[in-house]
Formats: sequence, structure tokens, C-alpha cells
Amino acid sequence: MKIAFQGEHGAYSEQAVFDYFGEVESLPCESFDAVFEAVNNGRSEAALIPVENSLAGSIHQNYDLLLRNDLRIAGEYLLRVRHCLIALPDVKMGEIKKAISHPQALGQCADYLRKRGIQAEQVYDTAGSVKLLKESGARDTAAIASRRAAELYGMQILEEGIEDNAENYTRFLAIQKEAIVPASEAKTSIVFTLKNQPGSLFKAMSVFALRDIDLTKIESRPLQGKPWEYLFYIDFIGSTNEETSKRALDHLGEYALTLRVLGSYARFKG
Amino acid sequence: MKIAFQGEHGAYSEQAVFDYFGEVESLPCESFDAVFEAVNNGRSEAALIPVENSLAGSIHQNYDLLLRNDLRIAGEYLLRVRHCLIALPDVKMGEIKKAISHPQALGQCADYLRKRGIQAEQVYDTAGSVKLLKESGARDTAAIASRRAAELYGMQILEEGIEDNAENYTRFLAIQKEAIVPASEAKTSIVFTLKNQPGSLFKAMSVFALRDIDLTKIESRPLQGKPWEYLFYIDFIGSTNEETSKRALDHLGEYALTLRVLGSYARFKG
Repeated sequence: MKIAFQGEHGAYSEQAVFDYFGEVESLPCESFDAVFEAVNNGRSEAALIPVENSLAGSIHQNYDLLLRNDLRIAGEYLLRVRHCLIALPDVKMGEIKKAISHPQALGQCADYLRKRGIQAEQVYDTAGSVKLLKESGARDTAAIASRRAAELYGMQILEEGIEDNAENYTRFLAIQKEAIVPASEAKTSIVFTLKNQPGSLFKAMSVFALRDIDLTKIESRPLQGKPWEYLFYIDFIGSTNEETSKRALDHLGEYALTLRVLGSYARFKG
Repeated sequence: MKIAFQGEHGAYSEQAVFDYFGEVESLPCESFDAVFEAVNNGRSEAALIPVENSLAGSIHQNYDLLLRNDLRIAGEYLLRVRHCLIALPDVKMGEIKKAISHPQALGQCADYLRKRGIQAEQVYDTAGSVKLLKESGARDTAAIASRRAAELYGMQILEEGIEDNAENYTRFLAIQKEAIVPASEAKTSIVFTLKNQPGSLFKAMSVFALRDIDLTKIESRPLQGKPWEYLFYIDFIGSTNEETSKRALDHLGEYALTLRVLGSYARFKG
């Protein structure tokens, strides 16, 4: 089985692929578009895409791609992002003067680096910083990346979990061509648009509240080309194979300008 | 007047500072934390922080900082992100073989570059890519960054607006120590938490729907440390100086576990 992800070998997304799918072949793709294309043209059976990070927010680009492509969500995975301080195999912590990584990773470890007097230097990618460090052979430099990136390049992990905020999670969705029937407790993801008039979202939410359906995500997003319309993402507990969910979606269809079910899938259990 | 922003001179955030505040002194800060700190300790009178991008989503980190700091939102600004293809002054379009920029900017211009057979190479920053290009003196290379970055380094803009998706906007908030009383049509931003029980959000939204108050943003965010609680961001039309808004917030206080008004400010008019 081949699973597409965005990034280079050693990226956090690749780690999520192995955590979620087990022993599969990973297919690195340059962009999110290329990830969707790999599933569309059959180069990979499925893909794992990040849709939100607890610190950085939702990744609208991947919701756009879910809307533009005819693929289904088949599962979800929550990755705890644990940054590692990575050095050449025989280097000691005391030798490190400089850390290189993607700006976001450096930002997430800013306190840690400051307290130890380590200078931060930005490079384009987390996994790429480990590759660069290996090539340079610099003993005074550490890279910040995933455990997997360290192992891939045969490097040493000086310390793991150096992020300042431990509540750093990325939520991934597994996508494929065919819809699934979830075996365990299910979640369903939908996207819909409403007319921008006071109370329209309230009506839309009543279809869930009236049926005691629990929401796990709600997000509005202005449609920039259409200043009076909004796009909403909702995740709710339930599957489109269940009568209550079906009725709620039928009811929502009465208010929504457009409505798309992205998939029902097993809820992630930590 | 001195206004803090995150990034280097020439960053999109700096462009937003001048668009919104006019002729002021800009204060570049390394991180969002440093931006808030600059306002707290009086090094700058105010700051402009990005809180959402139409393609990339909300920037939770800045909402966290709004909650942790005792500052007020005093205004909003919507920046249309227009990427420029930037080269040395006398270079012709036909000479360009390679483009350097931040991965996000390269991704947003991927189609444009592919059609022209231009190779993408990642560097850490958009404004930084112009600086790098100037230092290297490479005639076969272009940087992708803001108009302002090109002007700052005395470089040539070969083409402006090369992003694949024109609907690329970043929303900025102006923050300062003192709350303001908005003169024109106002917007108010609030953050609150609710117990995770079916229908709790529906109740919370009823306080606005029952008073015909229009919402312009709603977003839920799981509190990772507290798996049964959610944080909600809502923006609504109205000011805390108006009776209807005051009553709605009082009413919301009956349901919410915590409630924080981030500020009332003039709504941005494009």
C-alpha cells in the first residue's frame, strides 16, 4: 500500500503516515495539490493531509482541495508534534551554539533556545535542516525536526520534546476514492454555505441541536469573491449511515445554499 | 508614532502597517511574542498582527497572545496579498530560470512558475529572499515577495500579482493598551469557553440570533489540555457601547464558563 503526504522524507506528515497506517510505502509530494493528484491518478491508494494545528489553526487550502476533488475522508489522526534537538552522532550538548530549522519550529522552541543561549537560524524545512546539518558536518550546530528525520539521516537526538508549548497537535485526515462505513463511533465532516442574514447560522445549527447531535468543530470562513456568503465547516458525532444524521443533513439542506458531505469515519481515540 | 510588526523590513505585515496607519515608524520584531511585548513595555504605541489568511486559516497563536496579554483590539485591516516576481534592475524576464522565496509564497505561485519553466527553491522568508538575491547578484534568479521588499532593496519588479489564486487576503488587527469607542459601524471580537454538551453552542448563539445581531466569524477550537472544553471565537456587528450588544454579552455570560471581550472597533471597508 502506498500513501501520499506533503513534504520530504522525515517530515512530521510522514511520521503521521506510519503512525496511522502502519507498515506502508510513503510517497513524498512537493505540494498539497500533488498529494490530491497522487490519489486521483492512482499513484497512491490514499493520502494523509494536515487540516488543523492546535497552535496555527485550520489549513483552508486542504479544505479547498477537498471541495475541488471527488475524494472521501476515511479516517482521522492526531499527531502530538514533538520537536527534537538533533546533532552529529558524537557531539555533546555543550558544543551547540546554533540551531537551524523551519521558522515555525524555531518559533515553537524559542524559550528553550533562549534559555540555553543557542542562536536560531532559519532554513526552509524541518527535515531539510537535518539533511543540511549532515552535509555541513558542523559540530556547533543542531537541527530541530522530528525523531524520524534524525533516524533517517543517522543523527543523534540530544533532547526530545523541546517545544515551549506541549499542547502542539496536528490533526490529519486520511483521504481516498471510496467512502467507508465506520465500524466504531463515527464523526462526519461537512462543508456548507449559507446566505449572510442574521440568524441563518442559528437555524443551521438547530438541525443538530434539535436532535442532540454533538458538534466537535465549527468554523466560518468568508467567501472572498462573494462578500455576502460564508462557508462553514462542521464536524459532528454520527455517521451518514445512521437515520438521525441523515435527517439532520436533509433538514440542513433546506437552509443551505450548498452542502457537501466530505465523509464519515471512525473518531480518533488517543 | 511607532508600530510593531512581526518580520523583517519589507514583510507583508510591514506593508499592512503603512497601509493602515499611514506615515509611522515601523518596528520589526522577531516573533509574535516580541510584538506584544513591544506594546506592553511601551517601545511601540500599537501593533498590527495577522489573525487569519483566506487560504491558510486563523492564526491561533495570536488569539492565545490576545488572551494572555491585557491589550485591546482598536481596528482591523484586510491586506490583499499580491506576490511580485523580483529581479536585479537590468535583468529580462527571459533570463529567469529559478525563483526563491518562503515555501508558502512559492506554493501560492506554483502554477505560474510551472507554466514558465521556472524552478522553485525554498528560503526562510519572503523579504529575506530579496535580500539574498541582491547579495548574490544572480541574473538567472528571481525572488518572490511584496512590492515593498523590491523597493526597499532597489530591485526590479518583473511582474506583480503572480499568485495562482487572487482570493488571497490576510486580516490584521491593530492592538494597543487602551480600548477605543468606534466612530463608524463597529465590530466586536470575543473569546469564550463552553461546557462540551450537545446544544451548548446553540444556546450561546441564541443570545445573538434573538437580538438579530449578525455574526461575521465563528470558530471553535478544542482546548487540548481540557478535552471536554472548547474555546470559541466570535466576531459580531455592534459595539460594547451599544445597549443591544451589552445585553447579548450579559446573556452569554449566563452560559459561558469564561468570556473575554477583546475589543470593539470600526469595521474594515475595502
